[in-house]
Amino acid sequence: MAQKPSIPKGTRDFGQQEMAERNYIFDTIRSVFRTYGYRQIETPAMENLSTLLGKYGDEGDKLLFRILNSGDAFAGIDPDRPVVPQICEKGLRYDLTVPFARFVVQHQNEISFPFKRFQIQPVWRADRPQKGRYREFYQCDVDVVGSRSQINELELVQIVDRVFSLLDVRVLIKVNNRKVLTGFAEICGFPERVVDITVAIDKLDKIGLEKVEEEMMDKGLSAEAVAVLRPILLLSGSTEEKLSTMRGLMNGGSASGIVSETGLRGLDELEELFGLIAAAGIAQGVEIDLSLARGLNYYTGAIFEVKALDFPIGSICGGGRYDNLTGIFGLPDLSGVGISFGADRIYDVLKGLGKFPADLATGTRLLFAVMGAEELRYVLPLARTLRERGVSVEVWPDAGKLKKQFDYAARKNIPFISINGTDEIAAGTVNVKNLITGEQKAFPAADPDALLAFLA
Amino acid sequence: MAQKPSIPKGTRDFGQQEMAERNYIFDTIRSVFRTYGYRQIETPAMENLSTLLGKYGDEGDKLLFRILNSGDAFAGIDPDRPVVPQICEKGLRYDLTVPFARFVVQHQNEISFPFKRFQIQPVWRADRPQKGRYREFYQCDVDVVGSRSQINELELVQIVDRVFSLLDVRVLIKVNNRKVLTGFAEICGFPERVVDITVAIDKLDKIGLEKVEEEMMDKGLSAEAVAVLRPILLLSGSTEEKLSTMRGLMNGGSASGIVSETGLRGLDELEELFGLIAAAGIAQGVEIDLSLARGLNYYTGAIFEVKALDFPIGSICGGGRYDNLTGIFGLPDLSGVGISFGADRIYDVLKGLGKFPADLATGTRLLFAVMGAEELRYVLPLARTLRERGVSVEVWPDAGKLKKQFDYAARKNIPFISINGTDEIAAGTVNVKNLITGEQKAFPAADPDALLAFLA
Repeated sequence: MAQKPSIPKGTRDFGQQEMAERNYIFDTIRSVFRTYGYRQIETPAMENLSTLLGKYGDEGDKLLFRILNSGDAFAGIDPDRPVVPQICEKGLRYDLTVPFARFVVQHQNEISFPFKRFQIQPVWRADRPQKGRYREFYQCDVDVVGSRSQINELELVQIVDRVFSLLDVRVLIKVNNRKVLTGFAEICGFPERVVDITVAIDKLDKIGLEKVEEEMMDKGLSAEAVAVLRPILLLSGSTEEKLSTMRGLMNGGSASGIVSETGLRGLDELEELFGLIAAAGIAQGVEIDLSLARGLNYYTGAIFEVKALDFPIGSICGGGRYDNLTGIFGLPDLSGVGISFGADRIYDVLKGLGKFPADLATGTRLLFAVMGAEELRYVLPLARTLRERGVSVEVWPDAGKLKKQFDYAARKNIPFISINGTDEIAAGTVNVKNLITGEQKAFPAADPDALLAFLA
Repeated sequence: MAQKPSIPKGTRDFGQQEMAERNYIFDTIRSVFRTYGYRQIETPAMENLSTLLGKYGDEGDKLLFRILNSGDAFAGIDPDRPVVPQICEKGLRYDLTVPFARFVVQHQNEISFPFKRFQIQPVWRADRPQKGRYREFYQCDVDVVGSRSQINELELVQIVDRVFSLLDVRVLIKVNNRKVLTGFAEICGFPERVVDITVAIDKLDKIGLEKVEEEMMDKGLSAEAVAVLRPILLLSGSTEEKLSTMRGLMNGGSASGIVSETGLRGLDELEELFGLIAAAGIAQGVEIDLSLARGLNYYTGAIFEVKALDFPIGSICGGGRYDNLTGIFGLPDLSGVGISFGADRIYDVLKGLGKFPADLATGTRLLFAVMGAEELRYVLPLARTLRERGVSVEVWPDAGKLKKQFDYAARKNIPFISINGTDEIAAGTVNVKNLITGEQKAFPAADPDALLAFLA
């Protein structure tokens, strides 16, 4: 094989440096999930096509990677042996939500509700690969099902707050509520037009009030409806003021006089959530954003999105409450709420802002240079002791030129090197040099405590 | 959908308890790998079929899961639209070795050799599912390429030793050498019969010397050849004695008088490795086992296998040295050595021996029971502080009957519960009960140190 091997379009190798950085993100997120009582599950990469099909719309069905049933060794090789379509019964996981719903229904009798789970696994989509869009990428989802309490929404906000505080990234957490959007559509007399109204609110900043109102009328909303929506488009003030204005409108105080029970319930939820946030305290910013339109076809309550404040990139985190995730698998009325962390975007933010800790680059702390067999055997017991005390140590495997060994330490950012000869062996010491400061010291080989302190 | 959903044959869901146990194994292995300077990589689940095909023999090619190219939404649905075989260009990873070889060749210019990597990812095989054999399972591989030194073999032995010491599992590490096996075949005058000779050695314990010699003759070895091999079959004594006896035979001292240079080099390697092991010191047992026949077609030096001493199961770890892993991708003469940990079998051993730490079962340390909105808001800041101090805390989301909350704590093995009312709020304290000992204490809500100590 003359040609250099390659990997499929849209997939990636993660080398050692990138893995260390990605693990730093995942470990941080995982540690926060755990302190909130969320625990990990994993589901298989392959699901039955019957589990996956019809869950992501027609477009999603097309983007599923299908797996040939086993048993036909010639498929893909021998052009005279066509593959019959019936032998395709499995597909690769397209997201973590549908497998989670399947898991909850399948294992409902073993689960204690409320069920708090997180899941960090790759998913696959046959999307056209392009910058920032991959055919294999990790999702990182945290969900609780079996409780309608706003405490769950609070905890997700707290988790986001804590994760990004630990990652040293300033964020704005935006909150919307599907019931409030429904309320707007109801009080303006066009209850089916939730999406159009949300899109209009979203465009306000870009094109201004006049153009937004024109667009709504182009889409068939009446002038009266647009008049009802104007105070919502002009909504301003603190969260309390916004909630109070919306409550007045929803409670019959709009130009239509219509009362929206659904909208009022949405406002109750938002009010409770912001009250809980105030009671618990958070470190980063959180605000109501009525333009959030994520998942309008399945979210039924809270809608979340998180933006990095200091780096231009789309939402790095998002989610919401759903009331019927598991209905499609035969378990109706199980309410849940969840958030997904966008690992690739969070990686780009940390990289762009230079927020990865410097010592991630350092795998190995100390390299024992080796000049010959006797020196090698002399350092082996100490190397073992240091490793058992948790220090990452390498022993140069091929005795030879010191320059090569120093080069290796430099390329791998190894900060300490130890070079020993007959003098050290006679004295029972080891010589260790800090390659960054140049400081060099001798330590007793039999007692590693002082050396451990020097390496720390 | 009336039927309960299911997952494909041979795949598994991992629930929260099992994930905690599996993570305990993987975290232990990972932590040891790191102290030896090994660092993680990941490769895509899908590889090009051209990368995978022909690497695992005809049988392996049949067991590859093939992935349909995207773009045909009807594949597997519409029986009138046959799938043409040419649209299959990708397959799921069958092991971690071939993707690692592909990675090394593809990224050779970015890699510092010796390259020490580990990789923990699932692989897929279209094997017939049966007890203990899955179609999706994790492999956990550690390899170093670009060094022929026996220090690498030593480190792998030390890693195995340390991992199983930390997991509290007694093991026997068995070592063989492919060159020594070649030497036996050479000195008995049948240099092509390495496999037959190794199989014969392996059968010695089961069927005895006489039957083994009969079988070898049935397979076409001469009586003279069998006479040469007899002292090897009868080999006994300490490692030093065995090495010395074999050296004599390999050096012209056998009945044939043939000298095997290859065999002598194999004995040099074994002698050096056991010398290094003695110098470094290990906690568990290690011995030469000439019957190890793992990977005879590609291992070229050391061969390793690890057996659990106190639990009846096949090898839980295995590997060896190879001299041409990357040759098939166009990078010849890169020697390496590696070991693979069998995660599923190690799991069965720990489960069978009851070696999982008891506190893995406990996700959450403390449950704040909640009776009403005021009590809830009172405990939220303390819950946040405890979480930021690393304690896993849950707050009951739906105020209601205490019995339900106690049941939840019991089902989830939560050891501490806190119940507070107007008295505690007035006093600024929280009441915490140890559900195992029954001990109950009050702590100041504003200063969590005493509470943290009680929870520890």
